[in-house]
Amino acid sequence: MEHFSLNILGASSAIPLANRSPTAQFLSMADHYFLIDCGEGTQVKLRQHNIGLSRIEHILISHLHGDHFYGLVPLLSSLSLLERQKPIYIYGPPALEEGINQIMALSNSRLNFPLHFHPTDPNKKALIFESDRIEVFSFPLSHSIDCTGFYFKEKLGPRKIIKAAIDGLNLSVPELRALKQGKNLKGANGEVLLNENFTLPPLEPFSYAFCSDTQLIKHLHRYFQNTDLLYHEATFTEEFRNLATRTKHSTTKDAAHSANLTATKNLLIGHFSVRYKNFKQLLIEAQEDFEATYIAKEGFVYTMKRKSRNLEFSRIVTVPEEE
Amino acid sequence: MEHFSLNILGASSAIPLANRSPTAQFLSMADHYFLIDCGEGTQVKLRQHNIGLSRIEHILISHLHGDHFYGLVPLLSSLSLLERQKPIYIYGPPALEEGINQIMALSNSRLNFPLHFHPTDPNKKALIFESDRIEVFSFPLSHSIDCTGFYFKEKLGPRKIIKAAIDGLNLSVPELRALKQGKNLKGANGEVLLNENFTLPPLEPFSYAFCSDTQLIKHLHRYFQNTDLLYHEATFTEEFRNLATRTKHSTTKDAAHSANLTATKNLLIGHFSVRYKNFKQLLIEAQEDFEATYIAKEGFVYTMKRKSRNLEFSRIVTVPEEE
Repeated sequence: MEHFSLNILGASSAIPLANRSPTAQFLSMADHYFLIDCGEGTQVKLRQHNIGLSRIEHILISHLHGDHFYGLVPLLSSLSLLERQKPIYIYGPPALEEGINQIMALSNSRLNFPLHFHPTDPNKKALIFESDRIEVFSFPLSHSIDCTGFYFKEKLGPRKIIKAAIDGLNLSVPELRALKQGKNLKGANGEVLLNENFTLPPLEPFSYAFCSDTQLIKHLHRYFQNTDLLYHEATFTEEFRNLATRTKHSTTKDAAHSANLTATKNLLIGHFSVRYKNFKQLLIEAQEDFEATYIAKEGFVYTMKRKSRNLEFSRIVTVPEEE
Repeated sequence: MEHFSLNILGASSAIPLANRSPTAQFLSMADHYFLIDCGEGTQVKLRQHNIGLSRIEHILISHLHGDHFYGLVPLLSSLSLLERQKPIYIYGPPALEEGINQIMALSNSRLNFPLHFHPTDPNKKALIFESDRIEVFSFPLSHSIDCTGFYFKEKLGPRKIIKAAIDGLNLSVPELRALKQGKNLKGANGEVLLNENFTLPPLEPFSYAFCSDTQLIKHLHRYFQNTDLLYHEATFTEEFRNLATRTKHSTTKDAAHSANLTATKNLLIGHFSVRYKNFKQLLIEAQEDFEATYIAKEGFVYTMKRKSRNLEFSRIVTVPEEE
């Protein structure tokens, strides 16, 4: 996949409003699909974004505050009614597994498909999913209950063969594979054919980190660095720093500090308190300390091309404008 | 209150779509507010209908299929975050009480306000709430799991005193109260003053019955009769009668039959299968057997004036039009 895409299904905090939905993101990366958090109404948001429910494969839940997981069982129930058979992989706090079972039991109902539950560790960074294309880690955040962030890192792909350079060499399949792996070859007369003459380096992998909900973590760079994109909660402006401290949330400056600390290329901020009628001041404060800051807007998709890695965005869903 | 009003927050069945929400209704009757069923997203629908969450007092849950209750705990959580202190009264299947506690426990959270839970009886009609203005009953429906309907019946109010008729009689407060209660008075010379010469009969009370989800109940008239309005599910057209039988739902003709059986004045049908792109055929079929049938449209409020009792409706929320 030549680009990165992240749909913001919801980016509000705590209490849903008529035009603001709780946290949920749909990430498409390295030919995998990840649903990150699943607040109430997420299945309807997926439909409004024209994302087929059948594409969902991995669901990651940061923590068990309702605005981050109340949409999970409703979504699973709908997948079951839609006669899904492929498994779903869920990553979240250990208590969530029994919670899902308890809620399903109320309806005397069962899921049609296998549900594989992977408990996250709130105390240390851990690999939770790996394919030949990507690694996904959970890592500890610092909130009022156990909470983890998630770090998605594509693996370095094979080197690209320069077609013109190998023309006439009549290389075998194993030799081509060796070139892609960065190895040198032996020529017809025993001479060394240097890999760098026949291949280009692979394109840089994408990486993405999700941090919500959390107060400022001073050692965040131990969990990830040099990401293309960091989503970091910024529930409050600086004016409400005391409230942020008390509720263990971040301010705009905390989010910007985390972006600098981890040397991210682009910063998305969200999870704003419902007290904000518009997001101007939040953006101004974060941009003062980290210029490449953007607002995570509901109903928008954020993309990056592999070469430029500039964050681009476009509206998918028409929602009422902020005042 | 001189009129009756019912907001249709959601009237879809089973699987929410981008523009169709699961069952929830907000009933305003006899100075009380009742939320009937609470599918996922109900709190957002309440906001879109401009119904303040603080007005909610009584919540009635018909049964524990997700499309009728998945919005309940999210709503209660928001009320708690909004620092509600007044109690909430919930009426529903017995298992729901523990279910609410289990879900709240996942977040280590507690409600700020008292929650009074009244378990419903799936086997017989029972009075579940009474004030000086209204009685509310649950009664058995017939579905794939325990399910009850709800019947709301205003009490007969006091007789209305004809001001011109009592002019000059200089009646005391106890005498006026006696007149309102329908009693005769004794005149200055011991003669009987007939009540009917001084009062008008009270206006007829409103009544409303909610039946979802259920297959046809042949003895439904034992639970209520002569209602002003009956909401009855009609998940399928006649073409899918076999499917209705198998899933224990009603067809359009079942709903119309129930309206005739109980001698209701107006019938609202809803809970339509998502297979229907529009509701024309559903309305035609029901109206063939019961003329005063209306579609329960999401985003609309249905009202009746006390004298005419004709069902009127108007759009409150702009939702995408059906195709």
